[in-house]
Amino acid sequence: MESGPPGGSGPAEPGPRLRGLRGADATASASSWSRFGAEAGCRAPAVAAVLPAGGSGERMGVPTPKQFCPILERPLISYTLQALERVSWIRDIVVAVTGENMETMKGIIQRYRHKRISLVEAGVTRHRSIFNGLKALAEDQPNCRLSKPEVVIIHDAVRPFVEEDVLLRVVTAAQEHGCSDYDLEFGTECLHLALKYSHIKAKLVEGSPDLWKVTYKRDLYAAESIIKERISQQVCVVMDTKENEEHVGRCLEEMLKTELNHVKVTSGQDLQQIILEQCYNFVCVNVMTSDFEETQRLLNMLEESNLSILYPVVVISVHFLDYESVPFGQRMEKVMQIREFAKEVKKRNILLSGLLIYFPQEEQKLQESLRQGATIIAALIKDRNSGLIGQLLVA
Amino acid sequence: MESGPPGGSGPAEPGPRLRGLRGADATASASSWSRFGAEAGCRAPAVAAVLPAGGSGERMGVPTPKQFCPILERPLISYTLQALERVSWIRDIVVAVTGENMETMKGIIQRYRHKRISLVEAGVTRHRSIFNGLKALAEDQPNCRLSKPEVVIIHDAVRPFVEEDVLLRVVTAAQEHGCSDYDLEFGTECLHLALKYSHIKAKLVEGSPDLWKVTYKRDLYAAESIIKERISQQVCVVMDTKENEEHVGRCLEEMLKTELNHVKVTSGQDLQQIILEQCYNFVCVNVMTSDFEETQRLLNMLEESNLSILYPVVVISVHFLDYESVPFGQRMEKVMQIREFAKEVKKRNILLSGLLIYFPQEEQKLQESLRQGATIIAALIKDRNSGLIGQLLVA
Repeated sequence: MESGPPGGSGPAEPGPRLRGLRGADATASASSWSRFGAEAGCRAPAVAAVLPAGGSGERMGVPTPKQFCPILERPLISYTLQALERVSWIRDIVVAVTGENMETMKGIIQRYRHKRISLVEAGVTRHRSIFNGLKALAEDQPNCRLSKPEVVIIHDAVRPFVEEDVLLRVVTAAQEHGCSDYDLEFGTECLHLALKYSHIKAKLVEGSPDLWKVTYKRDLYAAESIIKERISQQVCVVMDTKENEEHVGRCLEEMLKTELNHVKVTSGQDLQQIILEQCYNFVCVNVMTSDFEETQRLLNMLEESNLSILYPVVVISVHFLDYESVPFGQRMEKVMQIREFAKEVKKRNILLSGLLIYFPQEEQKLQESLRQGATIIAALIKDRNSGLIGQLLVA
Repeated sequence: MESGPPGGSGPAEPGPRLRGLRGADATASASSWSRFGAEAGCRAPAVAAVLPAGGSGERMGVPTPKQFCPILERPLISYTLQALERVSWIRDIVVAVTGENMETMKGIIQRYRHKRISLVEAGVTRHRSIFNGLKALAEDQPNCRLSKPEVVIIHDAVRPFVEEDVLLRVVTAAQEHGCSDYDLEFGTECLHLALKYSHIKAKLVEGSPDLWKVTYKRDLYAAESIIKERISQQVCVVMDTKENEEHVGRCLEEMLKTELNHVKVTSGQDLQQIILEQCYNFVCVNVMTSDFEETQRLLNMLEESNLSILYPVVVISVHFLDYESVPFGQRMEKVMQIREFAKEVKKRNILLSGLLIYFPQEEQKLQESLRQGATIIAALIKDRNSGLIGQLLVA
């Protein structure tokens, strides 16, 4: 961990200092590098990011600073870090936080396993925080594990949805225009400072509507809905191979496709691969027996994969029930075990529910209950409410 | 219904025309009128509102124009109309919609029982739509039921959260400054036009963060969350008078207060009054019998009240179960009737669920299951997901 100087030292004007951070030999061409440096002969510049995160969140109307406000129980800043970490060519990410939030931030980095992060102390203003971050990157200290970058991206901690292509445009523009500091916020005070204090040209890079800043409480709501929508784009249906089920399983898959528009519904043929591809929703179709073998197997795989570290994973254990021929209560009691499983896996951010689908002999009635089952599954996936785990729903 | 001229006629500059709409005798004082004209000797000016609603919603990335996008199954524009209707001193509300959406709009007015609304055809630009609205208000036609206003508020159809105090400030500013057209959007093109084409002074009135415009899909998400939060601010617990229940009922109330921060939890002593005060959440606590008398009585009252026309009303029928002494299945089957009730009342926008709370003799265990019950109730109220109606949840 780096620890920068407190806010009192250093000049207030980041412009000229920023300039010094850029090497003169940025020879990579923008067009070839825009293919992520994949082509031969193209050298990607050394890029780092600085995140000023010293804000107090006054406008949110909540006591927690906005960068630490939870979305699906994870702090907002962790989503922003995740977005930057995904970009392989960003070597170092320096976060400037106030002294009182230093331990919180360390806890977040550890819990969500963020990599390539260094912390510095925030200054009294946003600009001083940026300056502290830049200073940590520029220093030639013997124990400093940070590499001196050619381009530094300044990114707000409360803009969680930044995409690689925008970052790439910022970096290539920095290389072309010789401007060192591109704030991703249009017309920001940073840009004004750069123009005022430096002799370099500044260029405004077009962002995307996704790049908006979480400022008000309504923005937190929007962010939560967007995140929920993103992780609900794929549902995996896991089935065993019994013939009856094969049929109902396929029907259920079809109906899920109708319920969840634009959602990719995949069969769990290669579960490991699907987990690797970051699917966060699983429907486990079982025969109505006393065991939860298939669900248990899935839960074990999920726990081993660490998939649920960043997002809550929804698992729905589906069972079929012909309650004309078998007493309802007898079977119910066995399935009630689901509550105990659910409590256990909730500790690892897995949201387990049970779904009992009425299985009549008549095809039309069966279709009707499968349709209702799909509606319930869609509701559980979309809302992702941990208050409803361990329930046995009936379709 | 008024039908204004199509977009082709009339001047493009609304400034001078707008000016003509304001009478010279606006004598009401701003300070006294700010108490909503309640004091003697204060005459409120005749106020009307024009809503340009001819937009196509391109930026939303959805096929439906944004003013018709559903939030909790009701179109966005209906929320905006509701916000304006609440303001008793706005005499007429003129909505400009395109010809192809005229029938949709009529359907919305009828279904959600909006009052004081007139429709005109939208023009090809926002300004022409406003002009058409103003023309309808200014015309001295023999069959025109609209009264000529002194002040006209121009309000975007996609700003659903406008409050009376902001509207009042706009109107009093119009009276004081002699400016006729106040667009509630800061720095809008309307303001520029007013400054450019008219000799009157324009005044910018401070809005509130709530006044934001639904532009992107994320804004729809935010609007939905805000609306859900607003209608979840009060929960009414209805109980019968049996002694046992009195105790558990009170405990449940206390736990609900913990689960739902800032939520007003009221006992259903005077149900009619609570319904009149627009409480949208009801928890009906019953003994574990085969009947749903209490719940049924509540549902009947809700249906008669028309409370659920504008928002979905959540009703949770709570039953207690000591499953150590009574076979689980026997009781379950009776309570399963809830599914049939739920289907029926869903037609009238009431979301009914059942909740079975385990009732052990031991006080500590009872507290535990009541706590879990409160968590489930809070989840159902917050999410308000119609996909989960008719379920019997277990705490």
